[in-house]
Amino acid sequence: MKIVIVGASGTMGRHLASAFEKDHEVIKADRHSDDVKVDITSPESIENMYKNIGSFDALICTAGPTYVGPWKNLTDKTFRNGVEGKMMGQINLVLIGQHYINAKGSFTLITGALTHDPQKNFANASAANAAVEGFVRAAAIELENGIRINAVSPTVIEKSPQYFPYFPGEIPVTMQQLEYGFSKSVFGANTGQIIKPY
Amino acid sequence: MKIVIVGASGTMGRHLASAFEKDHEVIKADRHSDDVKVDITSPESIENMYKNIGSFDALICTAGPTYVGPWKNLTDKTFRNGVEGKMMGQINLVLIGQHYINAKGSFTLITGALTHDPQKNFANASAANAAVEGFVRAAAIELENGIRINAVSPTVIEKSPQYFPYFPGEIPVTMQQLEYGFSKSVFGANTGQIIKPY
Ligand SMILES: NC(=O)c1ccc[n+]([C@@H]2O[C@H](COP(=O)([O-])OP(=O)(O)OC[C@H]3O[C@@H](n4cnc5c(N)ncnc54)[C@H](OP(=O)(O)O)[C@@H]3O)[C@@H](O)[C@H]2O)c1
Ligand SMILES: NC(=O)c1ccc[n+]([C@@H]2O[C@H](COP(=O)([O-])OP(=O)(O)OC[C@H]3O[C@@H](n4cnc5c(N)ncnc54)[C@H](OP(=O)(O)O)[C@@H]3O)[C@@H](O)[C@H]2O)c1
Repeated sequence: MKIVIVGASGTMGRHLASAFEKDHEVIKADRHSDDVKVDITSPESIENMYKNIGSFDALICTAGPTYVGPWKNLTDKTFRNGVEGKMMGQINLVLIGQHYINAKGSFTLITGALTHDPQKNFANASAANAAVEGFVRAAAIELENGIRINAVSPTVIEKSPQYFPYFPGEIPVTMQQLEYGFSKSVFGANTGQIIKPY
Repeated sequence: MKIVIVGASGTMGRHLASAFEKDHEVIKADRHSDDVKVDITSPESIENMYKNIGSFDALICTAGPTYVGPWKNLTDKTFRNGVEGKMMGQINLVLIGQHYINAKGSFTLITGALTHDPQKNFANASAANAAVEGFVRAAAIELENGIRINAVSPTVIEKSPQYFPYFPGEIPVTMQQLEYGFSKSVFGANTGQIIKPY
């Protein structure tokens, strides 16, 4: 399978790339990648990425910038971090990518438990996650040629201890569980699902 | 109670205004209102609305424009209808309005069953609804001074028969049920809830 990972240099992306490249061709994309550069906040950049890559079987996105910070700093302006990044960035990866992906291919997007389990400082991520999840359910009944779409929604992951203080009592998701979540979407047959890998 | 209804000239808004003005002071807002004009796609317009109205006890929003149409026409550009309208329009009503609303006041936003129950042609609304619902849950743990926030999420409503063909088998919500949903949020004590008035 030819698998594109957007956000491949990140904590999640690095783990998934090294797991999946054992048996598959993995193309690593993000703003500074040596494989393919992409800035998901720009539809033009996304279109260029797909033109460079050519046809492929699966797109995984683990890039999803949002504004993290005190509620008093949350304004229309700071909210745009998550709107342009995690939300429209990922939605545009699908709206544009559907014209490049192989029949029976799959899109797997990243959301997170904040959709339903809010935490202080993360309202922007809660909204962006939820938007992506609503889009995933809707896109699943619209995409043609057997193309599937799911989201993986972990809690805080074990390799991000810097976030633990913001998620009191949240049981961390292991990297193995996270990998299972993405594997279920990419190699399984489900569509329109929000996969909770725990 | 002093209740602001944004979207007061619409199908939902007209019903709620006439129901609540029996016992309360109702201020009707939308782009063409004689009471107060507001365009929720503009943060400046929202700020001006609140300055004109002064302090108030409850804000209800039933204004939520989205793009409705075939999936093939869904692009970054058409998607912005729901992003700027139903999503950021309502989120900005809260981010800005929190500085004007009375202590123990409430915000009640509009979403819809499309969040979890997608239908063809409505992916933009599914994403915008979900974003608002994620935001409502997150804002509920951040808002201060006892300010509450909820969303009302009906299926198609009985007074909108033009939508029935798009929602096969969906049991319409009556105007009375819709009113109960908003009453529960405005006059009850809950916060962070997605109220399904059926
Ligand atoms: N870490 C957790 O505990 C956790 C838990 C639940 C959900 N999540 C979500 O999962 C996602 C990934 O988390 P992570 O910890 O792996 O993040 P991370 O380590 O910060 O990695 C982010 C990746 O995305 C890329 N990226 C950032 N902005 C981009 C843009 N505009 N265009 C293209 N690529 C971009 C980065 O590379 P460049 O900077 O080179 O572009 C990097 O490869 C985030 O959305 C986060 O909210 C994280
Ligand atoms: N109708 C249904 O069956 C149904 C079911 C579930 C959910 N919903 C959702 O409920 C909401 C209201 O539905 P409805 O049927 O009552 O809608 P509607 O009859 O079309 O009324 C919309 C109202 O919003 C105002 N409005 C539109 N754009 C605005 C803007 N940019 N700024 C300020 N006000 C604006 C309109 O007045 P002006 O044009 O004068 O601004 C009008 O008062 C929508 O978000 C819809 O998605 C509807």
